[in-house]
Amino acid sequence: MSSDPSSATLAALGESGLVAKILARIGESQVESSSIEIAAGDDAAVMGTSGSSFVLSVDMYAEGKHFRTDWSTAIEIGRRCAAASLADVCSMGAVPVGALLAIGLPASTTSHWADEFMAGFMQEIGDAGSILLGGDVSGCESIVISVTALGTVVSGTAITRGGARAGDIIGICGRSGMAAGGLRVLQRGLRSPRALVDAFRVPEIDYTAGTRAAKSGATSMIDISDGLVADLQHIARESGVGIEIDTKKIVVPVELGTTAAAFGADPMAWILAGGDDHAFVATFPPKKRLPTGFAEIGKVVPDPIGEVLVDGVLYRDAYEVSPGFQHFSS
Amino acid sequence: MSSDPSSATLAALGESGLVAKILARIGESQVESSSIEIAAGDDAAVMGTSGSSFVLSVDMYAEGKHFRTDWSTAIEIGRRCAAASLADVCSMGAVPVGALLAIGLPASTTSHWADEFMAGFMQEIGDAGSILLGGDVSGCESIVISVTALGTVVSGTAITRGGARAGDIIGICGRSGMAAGGLRVLQRGLRSPRALVDAFRVPEIDYTAGTRAAKSGATSMIDISDGLVADLQHIARESGVGIEIDTKKIVVPVELGTTAAAFGADPMAWILAGGDDHAFVATFPPKKRLPTGFAEIGKVVPDPIGEVLVDGVLYRDAYEVSPGFQHFSS
Repeated sequence: MSSDPSSATLAALGESGLVAKILARIGESQVESSSIEIAAGDDAAVMGTSGSSFVLSVDMYAEGKHFRTDWSTAIEIGRRCAAASLADVCSMGAVPVGALLAIGLPASTTSHWADEFMAGFMQEIGDAGSILLGGDVSGCESIVISVTALGTVVSGTAITRGGARAGDIIGICGRSGMAAGGLRVLQRGLRSPRALVDAFRVPEIDYTAGTRAAKSGATSMIDISDGLVADLQHIARESGVGIEIDTKKIVVPVELGTTAAAFGADPMAWILAGGDDHAFVATFPPKKRLPTGFAEIGKVVPDPIGEVLVDGVLYRDAYEVSPGFQHFSS
Repeated sequence: MSSDPSSATLAALGESGLVAKILARIGESQVESSSIEIAAGDDAAVMGTSGSSFVLSVDMYAEGKHFRTDWSTAIEIGRRCAAASLADVCSMGAVPVGALLAIGLPASTTSHWADEFMAGFMQEIGDAGSILLGGDVSGCESIVISVTALGTVVSGTAITRGGARAGDIIGICGRSGMAAGGLRVLQRGLRSPRALVDAFRVPEIDYTAGTRAAKSGATSMIDISDGLVADLQHIARESGVGIEIDTKKIVVPVELGTTAAAFGADPMAWILAGGDDHAFVATFPPKKRLPTGFAEIGKVVPDPIGEVLVDGVLYRDAYEVSPGFQHFSS
């Protein structure tokens, strides 16, 4: 065995290690492009022209890692890939306008599967008010889907992860923990409760939540793909603030509570650490009314280190409570 | 065996069948988006804002299909994926400004390989004057790379495949056939002549050729990825014109001639049918001087069916002369 760190494999490094390497490259390329408002590293990059800016983000979804064809139909997989990708531009306060799709498919893929996948993808981008701007298909050993999402925003108004201020109120729009619950159900070979399984199969995105939050003066925003605490951690770190979540303010959905109880699990752990629901979480100036659909779950406090506390307790390791889950987050 | 056509596999349908399905979807989504100037189906989609438009294109490259890690270094693969993708926006007459990269990597991928790939990718997009706008990494069974290329163009000036007119002169900028020759060399287990192998490994793109052609009044343009005749066929069909190539005007590079002779092949077949060089071929109004770097190879004639003739002979099946090559075109 070589001790040369460059011979470390992806398995050893982990995806986050490689993502960090790529993001470092993004940083070094920010030379003198006057039209770049916000470089990648946030949910999306923002590229300005006069008056209007484009918001761009790319995501890759791999069979066996982000989805399984025995757990989800092709329609569901198509919808999920579109939804998860478009949520990224919404979380910048942008209006989703388009998507580019590249698909790698094994030779054994049926025309039916491909048709159904496209039907689901087109349905979801249509629901978001977006159109398909481009596509490519390649043969591949397993199914791989790459989606580039495009949104528009008034120049200078995109909402990053870095604007939260002490005193702000934290609001969430959408469900959290449902997809994580659905994943646990599927992992046990079960197919119900449907509410949870469906939540895992196709996230329910409120595509106008981002622009509503922007209008209400949101100071920072993110969509929850890794988990509520993990993603709030991004806001805390990027903004240089602390975040305090008050679980008394969080309502546990009935199906989530009963399923967690049946599995001997804590439903709040699923809500706090489960990803893939793509709810939006944002920070708002105090004393302002939260926009429709957003519910208060905590507040922003001074803390230059950027910790996330849940009911006053440090929750830095929340992500670790669900090993294996990272394999299905996007 | 079922005779249901929806059970036909990708292997039976071919990629072009699936690409056609996806492009059909693109057509149906062009509802009422006022900012779309040119829908996908050309080299790239064009999305306008006031004064300036963005040009967007996506490509996917799969290990074993578009590249082999025993034939090319990680640096070369990174450069090639970037180059082939950015050439698409250049061929719309746009200035390449950015790229988004999604990579799927097997767990056995070394950190060294990933570093080298990124170094090559960054070098090439830097050479093109572009920056990395976003990235994602996923585990995957084999290496898969998806690149979304972004360019800018003055609104209303993008050059499509559909504007060629009878009487126009056809000009080419860059090499054709060199990558095809290099592929043949590698397929025989050889590693030289280097000029050919290098051409296959990293296409040499003139990133300002597209804007030079635009300034010279190019009426249509495409970058050669499938092959000179195959790509001119796109222009002929989209423009509703005929194209006549005069091979006497085409200079056969020395290495190409000697290698083809050694292989018992016709170097002109490689030039006419070989892809992957990403030269630019464009049509220009008659009596206008071709821009620097462009060489005349033929002319546009009236023909509503849109055929391509080579030395007066129909060359519709040119693509078929190189079976297997489609597996390495991008």
